[in-house]
Amino acid sequence: MLYSLTRRMFVIALLVASLGAGAECARAETSDPLSSWNDGPAKQAIVDFVKATTDSSSPNFVPPGARIATFDQDGTLWVEHPMYSQVVYCLERVPALVKAKPELANVEPFKTVMSFLSGDRAAIEKLSTPDLEKIATATLTGMTVDDFEAEVEKWMASAKDGRWKRPYTELTYQPMQEVLSYLRANGFKTYIVTGGGQDFVRVYSEQTYGIPPEQVVGTAGGTTYSYDQNGKPILTKDPKLLLNDNFAGKPEGIHLMIGRRPYAAFGNSTGDQQMLEYAGAGDGARLKMLVLHDDAEREYAYGPAEGLPDTKVGTFTQELYDEAKKDGWIVISMKNDWKTIFPPAKAAP
Amino acid sequence: MLYSLTRRMFVIALLVASLGAGAECARAETSDPLSSWNDGPAKQAIVDFVKATTDSSSPNFVPPGARIATFDQDGTLWVEHPMYSQVVYCLERVPALVKAKPELANVEPFKTVMSFLSGDRAAIEKLSTPDLEKIATATLTGMTVDDFEAEVEKWMASAKDGRWKRPYTELTYQPMQEVLSYLRANGFKTYIVTGGGQDFVRVYSEQTYGIPPEQVVGTAGGTTYSYDQNGKPILTKDPKLLLNDNFAGKPEGIHLMIGRRPYAAFGNSTGDQQMLEYAGAGDGARLKMLVLHDDAEREYAYGPAEGLPDTKVGTFTQELYDEAKKDGWIVISMKNDWKTIFPPAKAAP
Repeated sequence: MLYSLTRRMFVIALLVASLGAGAECARAETSDPLSSWNDGPAKQAIVDFVKATTDSSSPNFVPPGARIATFDQDGTLWVEHPMYSQVVYCLERVPALVKAKPELANVEPFKTVMSFLSGDRAAIEKLSTPDLEKIATATLTGMTVDDFEAEVEKWMASAKDGRWKRPYTELTYQPMQEVLSYLRANGFKTYIVTGGGQDFVRVYSEQTYGIPPEQVVGTAGGTTYSYDQNGKPILTKDPKLLLNDNFAGKPEGIHLMIGRRPYAAFGNSTGDQQMLEYAGAGDGARLKMLVLHDDAEREYAYGPAEGLPDTKVGTFTQELYDEAKKDGWIVISMKNDWKTIFPPAKAAP
Repeated sequence: MLYSLTRRMFVIALLVASLGAGAECARAETSDPLSSWNDGPAKQAIVDFVKATTDSSSPNFVPPGARIATFDQDGTLWVEHPMYSQVVYCLERVPALVKAKPELANVEPFKTVMSFLSGDRAAIEKLSTPDLEKIATATLTGMTVDDFEAEVEKWMASAKDGRWKRPYTELTYQPMQEVLSYLRANGFKTYIVTGGGQDFVRVYSEQTYGIPPEQVVGTAGGTTYSYDQNGKPILTKDPKLLLNDNFAGKPEGIHLMIGRRPYAAFGNSTGDQQMLEYAGAGDGARLKMLVLHDDAEREYAYGPAEGLPDTKVGTFTQELYDEAKKDGWIVISMKNDWKTIFPPAKAAP
């Protein structure tokens, strides 16, 4: 009797344990790596793509080494409106330039930038593209790569977006962070392929996206190797453009820096069109996705595709929208596909 | 008695098992990852560097993500004499060019190359640097990146070195293959940083060295994105040079393609000087090594450092030798430091 009771308890214990394990398995299976996505064709396309490329019995299986996924940054991984963060950086570096060379205070376009920073918000409208190029050259070149990195790091630690009053590096899209993690957990190597400055984005890419500097492809200038007055080797940033990583420059940059065709590519504007075409031209399963900013309330609304307001920053034309629909690319609606936009605010240190 | 016998047997079994485990541990510890290296300062420097950078209690500990090691290819990882393999490739592509455009048969420098390939070995001496550049442009540009990759792959599968009658990809240095594996096993990311063509080396780097295409930095030209007659996106190789990855171009290329300073750098010629200086200028433990070809019997002997014969291919000057000695770089003597030069020949398929 004692034996049989003990045995029965043992069987019950086993059952409970196995039920527990079952419950745990079920929990693991239902834990959603894309929990900030609403159910729908966009979320489904990502899950289907990962299944097709990682299941070794799938006809579209891709060996781990070849699993490359590329992501535009501005407007795809983080906020780009009303102005690219790097443009803000360049403008906010101007006072330091003027301090070093006081005569610049009366020279355009620096004079206009100083007015803008002093509160004359309309002054910015006066700046032409050549003006902005002059400012970019003055603030992004001429220093050593180490000094530039230190300057960007310092700026990023204190600069804040005007609308959300949060650091730019906290204004990444939570659903896209989940895609990055989900792809990496499935053996994909994730790359940023940005029209922004390669050296600029590399400063914060690891901490912000878990993407190491060597996996950032961006607009890049040359450097010159020389020695400082102590004979120490230095690399100085040149004004010479090597790669304009926008439009056709994106697949060209991918070939230069990665050397393989991506299986997945994510963008949000006409500057990403050729990258998505190039990814899509390969064999097997290819994931091509575009973020459409149609959420004025939680973020911004701009196109001009689908009747959204026109913009010069991150333009998504109707032509691009039509190409996407025709070629089976997936357009992500921020408004409908994303449950949340940003990660929770970090506690103050 | 039975009990005590069983217990004794159990104790003996445990002892045997633990001895067995001990023996296995000892085997694992004494299995030498650098078994093709003779004991000496070169081998010791590699082992000491790995210990210093990977032991978390070491003041020179480097976190895994930052563990970057760069290797020149020609003369450092594989044979470069009497002629770089890529130059042989370019020369051997000329008949295909002439077949496509028969008028080239009477145009220099192609005429001279055709004579050389027909057996007039002295003809090659007539080619000037501009001639070689013309041949390189004709054989390395103008085709799609996919066609180029297929051509190099095909050539590599059949081309053989004249002295050893083995494929070029088998004439890698076994001791350096061991260094690559040893560093990777210790969390280092290994890169090739070569004066050779980036697209050329990327074709065979994974299979030959376990280094994926995206970890090959080399001399690189631009590409142009367009569409073929079926509307399929293509990338065509341009004659425009973007990066001359030699001398100062090596640290510049490392910054462009990797964006971090290497902790270890390996080379064999004046073209590697700046890469080693750049690696050495960082903080903490830095490994800087140069292979000296002083083994005429098993491979080749050339310098002109240390009275070795002079050469135009992989020049190691006395000045470089003196800088190495002055700055604590390690010069590897092929003759004295390496037990074997090449991996065993692969069995015919």
